[in-house]
Amino acid sequence: MSTNKIMPDELRRHPLFGGLDNDQLAQLMETARVIQLDEGQQLFQCQQEARQFFMVRSGTIRLFLSAPDGAEKVIHLIAAGETFAEAITFMEGQIYPVNASALDACEVLAFSNKAYRTILHSSTDTCFRLMADMSKWLKRQITDIDALTLQNATLRFTNYLLHQVPAGTEHEVAITLGAPKNVIASRLSIQPESFSRILRNLQSEGHITVDGNVIYIKDINTLGQ
Amino acid sequence: MSTNKIMPDELRRHPLFGGLDNDQLAQLMETARVIQLDEGQQLFQCQQEARQFFMVRSGTIRLFLSAPDGAEKVIHLIAAGETFAEAITFMEGQIYPVNASALDACEVLAFSNKAYRTILHSSTDTCFRLMADMSKWLKRQITDIDALTLQNATLRFTNYLLHQVPAGTEHEVAITLGAPKNVIASRLSIQPESFSRILRNLQSEGHITVDGNVIYIKDINTLGQ
Repeated sequence: MSTNKIMPDELRRHPLFGGLDNDQLAQLMETARVIQLDEGQQLFQCQQEARQFFMVRSGTIRLFLSAPDGAEKVIHLIAAGETFAEAITFMEGQIYPVNASALDACEVLAFSNKAYRTILHSSTDTCFRLMADMSKWLKRQITDIDALTLQNATLRFTNYLLHQVPAGTEHEVAITLGAPKNVIASRLSIQPESFSRILRNLQSEGHITVDGNVIYIKDINTLGQ
Repeated sequence: MSTNKIMPDELRRHPLFGGLDNDQLAQLMETARVIQLDEGQQLFQCQQEARQFFMVRSGTIRLFLSAPDGAEKVIHLIAAGETFAEAITFMEGQIYPVNASALDACEVLAFSNKAYRTILHSSTDTCFRLMADMSKWLKRQITDIDALTLQNATLRFTNYLLHQVPAGTEHEVAITLGAPKNVIASRLSIQPESFSRILRNLQSEGHITVDGNVIYIKDINTLGQ
């Protein structure tokens, strides 16, 4: 393990630190340190007293539980730029609920829970800035999940269409839907409103034309990729 | 607009309220009210003073901006169970940055920013419980985004395979990959580690068998659905 310099800018991007002013950030950084981990090296053990929370700078951290028979269950993989074990900072019982070890060679920043709590306790304004940041971050993630869910549903539908393409088709083809649109949507686990949005999007992007229950595919080789 | 009863249980599930004790929740609910909106009815206007934040009980709320030419840009659609405009509660300038109107008939709970701020200001413990809840919620969403991203990548890959299926194939088929796996992964915008995980998952679920650069598909009609 070696200690390197931590730059304020690498922290500011994260909602946990974005709400801190310069003095508060400097105060926290004084108690922080850089930890180098080899592949497989353990960072902390389940049930160990939790005095620090962490941010991955490079590599991947594996959070896992060990079963009595020795088998391991991976709970989460933490990538660069992500923090972990910070929720414990805000709680009463300060015990790590999982094990953490390095999946590959890792560099991790460790922050003192006590220093972070002291900063937040001394300033409700800082708590409020942190909560505003977290709240905005939550909103962005909901939007991301929404977009991914729709993309996923779009791929399921294009997959469904490609399964109906007759043998020997080169590019263009007309597919007659064998069931009402709401039945197809339900079979593919797509909400009716999302299904309408998918048809509209695929049409406006020029991939398909919809005419009643007939779908004209412009090019089967570009649909769904 | 009519006023109905708000139940503590419908609030507790949301991270903004989960950290409040019974007295604090009762205190907040005293200042809260239920708003009924007809389809298209406006809830607040951009630049209006923000005195309340909201939770959708039923229907969908549309957050949008109006361009000078009268065109509207939808920023976000808020579904039942979701809150909106709560980040403003934690900020200095209390102005709504967007317009909000009902996409369809909606029931919305309105909470007083002032009452919520007073509760949080009077108790750092409550702030800490709220931050712990938000932090756990953020983690869950990261896991969701991760899972959705992998599902998406899996669908892109199965789509890619289905495109190579020769005309007239009934069920089983062997596809010889025309490029090294890392090239295919990159072409499909899939991280190499995710690509390995996808191949492993599809194998363990019995959909495919991988032998070098040959992929045996068990049944083209069930792959990717």
